[in-house]
Amino acid sequence: MNAKNASLAEQLVPSTYVQQGMTAIRSREKLITTLLAQRRLPDEGWDNASVEMLLQTLSAMDSNNFQGSAGAGEREARVFSPLVARRHFGLAHGVGRSGDVAAVQPKAAGSSLIVQLANALAKDVLHLAGMRAVKAALVLPVATGMSLMLVLLHLKNLKPNARYVIWPRIDQKSCFKSILAAGLTPLVLANVLVEEDGNSGGYLKTDLVGMAALMDEYGSENILAVSSTTSCFAPRAYDRVKEIAKLCLERGIAHVINNAYGVQASTCVHQIETAMRTGRVDAVVQSLDKNFLVPVGGAIVCSTSREVIDNVAKLYPGRASATPMLDFFITMLQMGKNEYRRLLEERKHLAAYMREKLEIVAMEEGERVLHVSSNEISFALTLATFCSEVEDRQEKSRRLTLLGAMLFSRGVSGARVVSCLDCKTIAGHEFISFGAHYDEFPVAYVTFACALGMKRSEVDLLVTKLRKIMHEWRANEKKTPDSSIDLYRL
Amino acid sequence: MNAKNASLAEQLVPSTYVQQGMTAIRSREKLITTLLAQRRLPDEGWDNASVEMLLQTLSAMDSNNFQGSAGAGEREARVFSPLVARRHFGLAHGVGRSGDVAAVQPKAAGSSLIVQLANALAKDVLHLAGMRAVKAALVLPVATGMSLMLVLLHLKNLKPNARYVIWPRIDQKSCFKSILAAGLTPLVLANVLVEEDGNSGGYLKTDLVGMAALMDEYGSENILAVSSTTSCFAPRAYDRVKEIAKLCLERGIAHVINNAYGVQASTCVHQIETAMRTGRVDAVVQSLDKNFLVPVGGAIVCSTSREVIDNVAKLYPGRASATPMLDFFITMLQMGKNEYRRLLEERKHLAAYMREKLEIVAMEEGERVLHVSSNEISFALTLATFCSEVEDRQEKSRRLTLLGAMLFSRGVSGARVVSCLDCKTIAGHEFISFGAHYDEFPVAYVTFACALGMKRSEVDLLVTKLRKIMHEWRANEKKTPDSSIDLYRL
Amino acid sequence: MNAKNASLAEQLVPSTYVQQGMTAIRSREKLITTLLAQRRLPDEGWDNASVEMLLQTLSAMDSNNFQGSAGAGEREARVFSPLVARRHFGLAHGVGRSGDVAAVQPKAAGSSLIVQLANALAKDVLHLAGMRAVKAALVLPVATGMSLMLVLLHLKNLKPNARYVIWPRIDQKSCFKSILAAGLTPLVLANVLVEEDGNSGGYLKTDLVGMAALMDEYGSENILAVSSTTSCFAPRAYDRVKEIAKLCLERGIAHVINNAYGVQASTCVHQIETAMRTGRVDAVVQSLDKNFLVPVGGAIVCSTSREVIDNVAKLYPGRASATPMLDFFITMLQMGKNEYRRLLEERKHLAAYMREKLEIVAMEEGERVLHVSSNEISFALTLATFCSEVEDRQEKSRRLTLLGAMLFSRGVSGARVVSCLDCKTIAGHEFISFGAHYDEFPVAYVTFACALGMKRSEVDLLVTKLRKIMHEWRANEKKTPDSSIDLYRL
Amino acid sequence: MNAKNASLAEQLVPSTYVQQGMTAIRSREKLITTLLAQRRLPDEGWDNASVEMLLQTLSAMDSNNFQGSAGAGEREARVFSPLVARRHFGLAHGVGRSGDVAAVQPKAAGSSLIVQLANALAKDVLHLAGMRAVKAALVLPVATGMSLMLVLLHLKNLKPNARYVIWPRIDQKSCFKSILAAGLTPLVLANVLVEEDGNSGGYLKTDLVGMAALMDEYGSENILAVSSTTSCFAPRAYDRVKEIAKLCLERGIAHVINNAYGVQASTCVHQIETAMRTGRVDAVVQSLDKNFLVPVGGAIVCSTSREVIDNVAKLYPGRASATPMLDFFITMLQMGKNEYRRLLEERKHLAAYMREKLEIVAMEEGERVLHVSSNEISFALTLATFCSEVEDRQEKSRRLTLLGAMLFSRGVSGARVVSCLDCKTIAGHEFISFGAHYDEFPVAYVTFACALGMKRSEVDLLVTKLRKIMHEWRANEKKTPDSSIDLYRL
Repeated sequence: MNAKNASLAEQLVPSTYVQQGMTAIRSREKLITTLLAQRRLPDEGWDNASVEMLLQTLSAMDSNNFQGSAGAGEREARVFSPLVARRHFGLAHGVGRSGDVAAVQPKAAGSSLIVQLANALAKDVLHLAGMRAVKAALVLPVATGMSLMLVLLHLKNLKPNARYVIWPRIDQKSCFKSILAAGLTPLVLANVLVEEDGNSGGYLKTDLVGMAALMDEYGSENILAVSSTTSCFAPRAYDRVKEIAKLCLERGIAHVINNAYGVQASTCVHQIETAMRTGRVDAVVQSLDKNFLVPVGGAIVCSTSREVIDNVAKLYPGRASATPMLDFFITMLQMGKNEYRRLLEERKHLAAYMREKLEIVAMEEGERVLHVSSNEISFALTLATFCSEVEDRQEKSRRLTLLGAMLFSRGVSGARVVSCLDCKTIAGHEFISFGAHYDEFPVAYVTFACALGMKRSEVDLLVTKLRKIMHEWRANEKKTPDSSIDLYRL
Repeated sequence: MNAKNASLAEQLVPSTYVQQGMTAIRSREKLITTLLAQRRLPDEGWDNASVEMLLQTLSAMDSNNFQGSAGAGEREARVFSPLVARRHFGLAHGVGRSGDVAAVQPKAAGSSLIVQLANALAKDVLHLAGMRAVKAALVLPVATGMSLMLVLLHLKNLKPNARYVIWPRIDQKSCFKSILAAGLTPLVLANVLVEEDGNSGGYLKTDLVGMAALMDEYGSENILAVSSTTSCFAPRAYDRVKEIAKLCLERGIAHVINNAYGVQASTCVHQIETAMRTGRVDAVVQSLDKNFLVPVGGAIVCSTSREVIDNVAKLYPGRASATPMLDFFITMLQMGKNEYRRLLEERKHLAAYMREKLEIVAMEEGERVLHVSSNEISFALTLATFCSEVEDRQEKSRRLTLLGAMLFSRGVSGARVVSCLDCKTIAGHEFISFGAHYDEFPVAYVTFACALGMKRSEVDLLVTKLRKIMHEWRANEKKTPDSSIDLYRL
Repeated sequence: MNAKNASLAEQLVPSTYVQQGMTAIRSREKLITTLLAQRRLPDEGWDNASVEMLLQTLSAMDSNNFQGSAGAGEREARVFSPLVARRHFGLAHGVGRSGDVAAVQPKAAGSSLIVQLANALAKDVLHLAGMRAVKAALVLPVATGMSLMLVLLHLKNLKPNARYVIWPRIDQKSCFKSILAAGLTPLVLANVLVEEDGNSGGYLKTDLVGMAALMDEYGSENILAVSSTTSCFAPRAYDRVKEIAKLCLERGIAHVINNAYGVQASTCVHQIETAMRTGRVDAVVQSLDKNFLVPVGGAIVCSTSREVIDNVAKLYPGRASATPMLDFFITMLQMGKNEYRRLLEERKHLAAYMREKLEIVAMEEGERVLHVSSNEISFALTLATFCSEVEDRQEKSRRLTLLGAMLFSRGVSGARVVSCLDCKTIAGHEFISFGAHYDEFPVAYVTFACALGMKRSEVDLLVTKLRKIMHEWRANEKKTPDSSIDLYRL
Repeated sequence: MNAKNASLAEQLVPSTYVQQGMTAIRSREKLITTLLAQRRLPDEGWDNASVEMLLQTLSAMDSNNFQGSAGAGEREARVFSPLVARRHFGLAHGVGRSGDVAAVQPKAAGSSLIVQLANALAKDVLHLAGMRAVKAALVLPVATGMSLMLVLLHLKNLKPNARYVIWPRIDQKSCFKSILAAGLTPLVLANVLVEEDGNSGGYLKTDLVGMAALMDEYGSENILAVSSTTSCFAPRAYDRVKEIAKLCLERGIAHVINNAYGVQASTCVHQIETAMRTGRVDAVVQSLDKNFLVPVGGAIVCSTSREVIDNVAKLYPGRASATPMLDFFITMLQMGKNEYRRLLEERKHLAAYMREKLEIVAMEEGERVLHVSSNEISFALTLATFCSEVEDRQEKSRRLTLLGAMLFSRGVSGARVVSCLDCKTIAGHEFISFGAHYDEFPVAYVTFACALGMKRSEVDLLVTKLRKIMHEWRANEKKTPDSSIDLYRL
């Protein structure tokens, strides 16, 4: 509704009403002005209509939506299905060019603006979360694993003869496979078990002495990087990234942090911030979905160096889906700073609440919640009294697994029962007690996470169900230890 | 994307790309300029994106979508359900004010613009269809029956002592009930049967002599109006509106034409046009859904007099749903002149094709398609050889009705079997051979309509199914005339 | 996903996962089972997905969405625009048949189910609000004014010779026009002013003695109905419906209550409930949008008698838009009992809060909030000190009106400045001090409503703006009483 | 609407109507049955409603949409923005698990079904297009370049010591960079120019002799693969994949075909089919967007060996966006076999039409359309008479580039002016006459593609604009060869 159209409208509707409407339209345009000028999250989140109007405007700026033009290329972003066109707001050119996944596209001014803004908002939201040392951020259209691989491939270009990556053990396949997929050789560094007084259990921390020894053994010139992990399941603590960063700086070894879902945890963020400021951190990778409540598909790579980010972007061969960027872009606009801060705060309080509630269950059941310094998200509740008398490892594992299946089928998702009795071989590497991040971890346990967006009612439901299922499991154990439970009984 | 925002965008994306995008945006704004300036159907229909952008802009001009305002009235157009808000594009104020259903609303500049434009487009599309004598048109948020009632109520205000409405019989309840609901007394005028040579059947036309006699009998001063009908089921022909208009002009009696679905038929339109130009036609009412392919809910009242239209609008007590206007508005924008003309043309050819195909079936079955001058939409195929030997009226009716049920349950909707054997009493008025528009119409028949938007494949399917079902009916008749057929067998 | 399809799915995805998914699907189907079986609001509101799945299923049951069928009628609910089809979830047959707006449609089983359920939910939600005497309710696809007219037309059928409707004055056009549009003659009954001690102002209540006198004067046999009003702007109180109902019962006069936005107010509901139980109340009409937060367009007519409701439905000539029913249906499903009760509770507290805040402003400005017994929604703040020295009525009115315009243009919608100095003639009836419901109401005032869905932040904003605008108005008055203020300055 | 709900519905709406509706619902369920049972494209495309109903059902089977469950993991697929949730139909778990991008997810039965079906449909549509030798296909959530890289990384696992990839030159960065990104070394094989009699120009074909020589030179054991290209810009012909496949088979070298947009071209498909049947083709990669009219973001990798496909899937580290799969899935359902075949046929005819029209322009301008055997999509029109007298290479290049810019800014997208005068260095490799696929290609030209989904009106518009712009360019050349043209003049 430009000025000319408004003036025509005044022939149909009294001028004062039209002017009132124009004031409203201009106030929405101002939102866009602020966004384009500041490139930061708005204080207050935008409503659906404001976001849709912006997207439709940007979409109209992409060549596939031009009216009266002729598409004579091999890729003209034609979309067959009206459902598909609608879900993409008519944006179909994807992101990037063959030379650079962050490059602007001549045919797609609108899509290109979204990419530029999304990357700016990524930097801003990391700052908001506390990672103020970040100088550049890139929203990648691939998830954490692939993003780690791309970062490693970039580092490899800089130090072509180094083929080893030191990897403090974390029993999660993607990050391990990202090293292999990059054609590199992982050096698995075992964690150190810090025992609690008088109890089996304890927590796992990075073996810095072992790491230095590995560096000596293989030679710094042959070691491309350390791939450390912050966000992880208890009882593994965050890797000691500050100390690792120091070691890497001293030895000229790159350092990549897999901070998959750590942006939501303030201590985690603080440790990374310190590492970035005081040691060597080439890049930090974080998942979009877990930290920012969007569907799976993207990650943010950030760095204290714009060059690293630019080079990762340039490494990406060809175009890519715009969806992860777009989801992130929309979400940042709708969330705004205030709501993001509120979510962070809420998660923090809820995690304390969850821990409290789990400790009550633990006490009732003669178990403990393991004390893991520096893990604010994941909690491990021991299962020492479950199957304690069963000798056969396989049978014991089977029965503990049943507990996990019962939790899942009764509506608790994401809980993981770790029997510490299973082995797994990935690409020739054997992992004993897979899932426990440690060979022969002394006690079985079940983990629960309190991640961003969880609700208090979910914690309550979790605890209620957990209690009930434990009782049911024990009753079944007494009665018919061999028979299986009907998982889908409600 | 105003100039300021475009210039900020150029800091993120090269200026030439942004400018290309701005050209595209301006070309969409020009569509709106043309619409607001000309208030006519666009030549080419708009795409979804253009319509949605316009609606979102207009919606932003309504006060319930203002940001940072306080709603302190009893009706602030708050919408609870996000699904409901979405389906209305955020438009929630409805249309009209307590004084006038076509009035603009101070709180809703956007909605008000839609109303003004919809009424202008209504006039334009009627002109396009050939009703060039129309001076004003009003899209009403009620369907044909209620619209007729509102017109009659308006006329009653002008001639308060006249309580009769002459109504050439048409066996369709809404229009009859619209007279009763207006508190008026219908004078039912029987049709005249024009027989075909040597055949039972024929067609039904208006009894002009009878009409004049009724006027004489009751006195012109006591007769408020003639309520004539154009679009109707064969074998009833369109009412002779030209001659009726002349009679009404001479006698000072108002004349309202129920042109429910006649805008799509050129002869029908031509007869109304002639009546409007040469005699008295106070208002013509046409259905939105049947003529313009929108969901049921609205009608257009048009007239050669703006005053009539304004007064009907002013009679409507209170606000109303914006949906019928909005559906019509969107549809006219998306259809455009060219597509509307194409649809009219297509229907015309398809009707000829349907008639041809039905005549072949008729010949095979020893029946005829009744020849009805001036009915371009509906066709009646006789059922003379069906149940010809059954004496009992009720049994005969039952068996013929079965044929209709079979058609419906086998996927032919809209076909009507008229046994000419049923009676119906509506508000004390008895109609013999209800459905046939004529007491004791000499032959049973089934009607089929070829309405706007029908596809050739539907005609083919209809004919195939009809043939098959007729055979099945006859087979069943021979075998077990008493038992019922399983309607839902496929 | 029926059993057969689930079993096929198990060839692609492990059975346990599919079964988990099927459990989820069945839990959604159970929501529908409960709805169909109980026909009451769900305790907890449904999410978008559940509502959309139900609507898509019902839509698939309407003939226009059948696959492979032939539409051979004049109305086959074809929809041209994909945008229009989408906003109606493919439902295009509207509601009702020519005989009855609540009747089921053979071609539209899905739409028909929605109508039946919507009417059942209407009854349930009125019960929830406290109108437990209601035996039947009908969601009408027209707003309050037209609904009142339809009720009056129905009553007229029962008592054809009675032409008068007693109407305790309420300065709102729709209800007055509904009497006129029905072809009836209103007898305007002036309100009684109940003065406050020592203050100009007071509140307005129904003149029961005057009403009885009117009945005597015109004769009960000539009076069709009393049309009373509950929800209204302060300082008018709710009509004394209990006493009116008693009078009507005694005299054999019908009684229709215009309860436009009163369902949200518990005292109002209680008075109607009492009137229905102890006297004569033929029907109560309430607006859909104001009470249930849907777009403008529908109303609920309810009664202690199913017969009344059925007859109103049967009076409606022809089909109608399904939109008001559908919006209401969706909203009731998404709101659920718990949220509806919460909204009622919230409004009650917020109204007390608003009154408090307005009283503070009033005190500061040397004004009062008028004490109106039994008006829980609308508050009137006197403007005695505004223009107190201006003698010229027209000039005074103009200046007071400016205050209203300033409120509106500065973002306070719905506030009404009533100067008590304006006259208005509607269809020959003159209303002195139009807007004040009373000839020469002794003091000017401005009204504010606290309606369902208002937010505390809106009350705060209202009070802040009100204070500021009053000061600005006074400053302007001193400086340049003749010049006009720039309304759109921000 | 299961049987129980239908029976409850029959208490509200007559049984026959409900049954008719249930028949319709069952006919939609049958579509799903057929899809799950056959896992092939439907003959006729599905309508929006059928697709949406399926997606909503599948979405309800994913754990994030379960009602009354507690999410206690670190990734629970919570979605903040309602706009984002809607565009993904509530599907938020992405695809794959850390071990395998094609693996099913326990938490996401619905998403997992979509992946399985999408992969089956991918195989089916390739068969439909003529690639009947394909035994397995995988829809990857990354575009062509990344897909090629993943295939190369997989091959590298099998032959870890081979580091060379023979790459017949194609001047498109993504495929070249995919080799580099995989950490491999490209051996660029120059094309052979096949001259036309008496004309400068000609076409480019694969140098098989040179390829064999390279294999000899570097040793088959050191060469990982040949990366050949079929779909490409004229005057480059498709690579001679049959002969390459034979060479690769003989020498034990892998062979990957970049068939970016070749599925739409029957000769191209035929050559690949022959190569797969008679020689060695490890994998063929094709773009989703260009061949199947979806937004940019995915690719199909297919092979005659299921093992290759499974291994590529297993190589992918971690989860990924579901969007490319989902877009492809929806599109295949809505397109159906018949529409897909129609599109292929239409493109074929339109390409011939485009060639014809371009030849007319060429003749008028004293130019030629180069004859390129086996390129059915791209056409090169020489620019021999443009700047023929300009000596300075840079100036000549600049002026020719202007022609391209004029085409783009006047609404012809996708045309590429190749001056054959530019050089480009990518990762240390220098390409002379970049864009021409050949050092010192003898004539400048402009290419146009006739890709799937192009419309006849676009070809006409292209030709009209081309002619006009050429004249304008020449006029400008004569007048003011140095000044620049206003590109955005309309």
